[in-house]
Amino acid sequence: MRSFRLIVEYDGSRFHGWQAQAGLRTVEGELRAALARSCGGAVETAGASRTDTGVHARGQCALVRVDTALEPGALGRALEALTPADLGIVECREAAADFHPRHSALEKRYLYRVYSARRAPVFERGYEWWVRAPLDLERMRAAAHALEGTHDFSAFQNRSKDPPESPVRSLRAIDCQQVGDRFVVQVIGDGFLYRMVRNITGTLVEIGRGKLAPAECAAILSSRDRGHAGPCAPPNGLYLMEVAYPDTSPCTVEDFRSSPRGAGWR
Amino acid sequence: MRSFRLIVEYDGSRFHGWQAQAGLRTVEGELRAALARSCGGAVETAGASRTDTGVHARGQCALVRVDTALEPGALGRALEALTPADLGIVECREAAADFHPRHSALEKRYLYRVYSARRAPVFERGYEWWVRAPLDLERMRAAAHALEGTHDFSAFQNRSKDPPESPVRSLRAIDCQQVGDRFVVQVIGDGFLYRMVRNITGTLVEIGRGKLAPAECAAILSSRDRGHAGPCAPPNGLYLMEVAYPDTSPCTVEDFRSSPRGAGWR
Repeated sequence: MRSFRLIVEYDGSRFHGWQAQAGLRTVEGELRAALARSCGGAVETAGASRTDTGVHARGQCALVRVDTALEPGALGRALEALTPADLGIVECREAAADFHPRHSALEKRYLYRVYSARRAPVFERGYEWWVRAPLDLERMRAAAHALEGTHDFSAFQNRSKDPPESPVRSLRAIDCQQVGDRFVVQVIGDGFLYRMVRNITGTLVEIGRGKLAPAECAAILSSRDRGHAGPCAPPNGLYLMEVAYPDTSPCTVEDFRSSPRGAGWR
Repeated sequence: MRSFRLIVEYDGSRFHGWQAQAGLRTVEGELRAALARSCGGAVETAGASRTDTGVHARGQCALVRVDTALEPGALGRALEALTPADLGIVECREAAADFHPRHSALEKRYLYRVYSARRAPVFERGYEWWVRAPLDLERMRAAAHALEGTHDFSAFQNRSKDPPESPVRSLRAIDCQQVGDRFVVQVIGDGFLYRMVRNITGTLVEIGRGKLAPAECAAILSSRDRGHAGPCAPPNGLYLMEVAYPDTSPCTVEDFRSSPRGAGWR
């Protein structure tokens, strides 16, 4: 068996999330099927993040183990050709023996897209959260600032089927940008609790529209009570953008105000 | 009966084009259904452009005639609520008695999006034409320049079921831009023959990838022979952006290189 390290992107709309599940169309399931077709034999896979149903990724990292003579470039091209159109292989290289996409990860960057306008988006529907109310960027920024650093994020965690783990996480950066009617929230941290980014975004939107005061964000955090935070933002606005490892650059907040790709990019 | 003038946008992916056809999902058909539900009685509609299956619109203009007491703003909101998510009502106002969306139009702007990269796009699939070959912007620009002005565009016209009409059209501007891997062709003209923008784009891409010389564009034009031009570009990269009338601003080429919306926008 040889180990390869992939960067994959996917449009989460028609996937039941990352993790392989019998009878459901998942990213990991499609990847395994393509690996079985290109290499045959036993296939092992693991992802850096088990993204939920509907969540997108631009830079998911996956470890795959297969028995193949293919070079990494050839395997990458084969997988790109064999996977469906809503799943793309950005990169494929040989992985070190001790590499694990989740355990070796230093930090991750997620991005959440919000569209604030009176009329629903036609072209970006399914790729951003439509909020009819106007949002105040400065209120969101002031609130987000309170979440940076190392905290117990229980107030922003949903219950999951996984065994309980420490709710303490370190957020190195939370950034809010506005380009016209579009708002982009970017979060860089060493790890994220279940639905944490969506709960943070839902809370920032409540603050941006004036339902909660910016100063309440710190109080919600210290309450450790999920009942105090805002609603969970829908999955289709969330993107796993990048995962950083000891041998890669750290994650960086993108500036969409000056980017030629613009805020319309996903 | 009162007349209203609408600006509508639609994601053409799941429509069999603009024009109402029995048994097929069309933009005009969905609009008529929404008008019948909101106003009842007889419904008349006409569009500025009969966009083909798969073609998108950001600024299609439609005239609708219905028997209603609703004010234009209220009618627009009702139609927005009653039309499906891939069709949006941008604007609704009362139309002058002699207004006709096609006959009164002075010019239209179409936009065509091309993605030039080795790997197919995951998120923009269905919204741009993926061309694997690298493209040379300056070659495309030089060729496009030859098409500006008043010409017989027979070489860029496909046969249609409509009765033949004069193949002479005036193109006020053809603009080609590049933002990273993305190319945007914009065309402003007083009218367009059947599939003319897609045939022009298909030819410009042949030139951009080096299959044809830039100087051949003028020769193709003067040949008046469709067999000499490049292939018809697929419908899903084409957008009807705006229609200009005596009481509106003229159409204008958008600069995506400096726009905060960026080339990723549609």
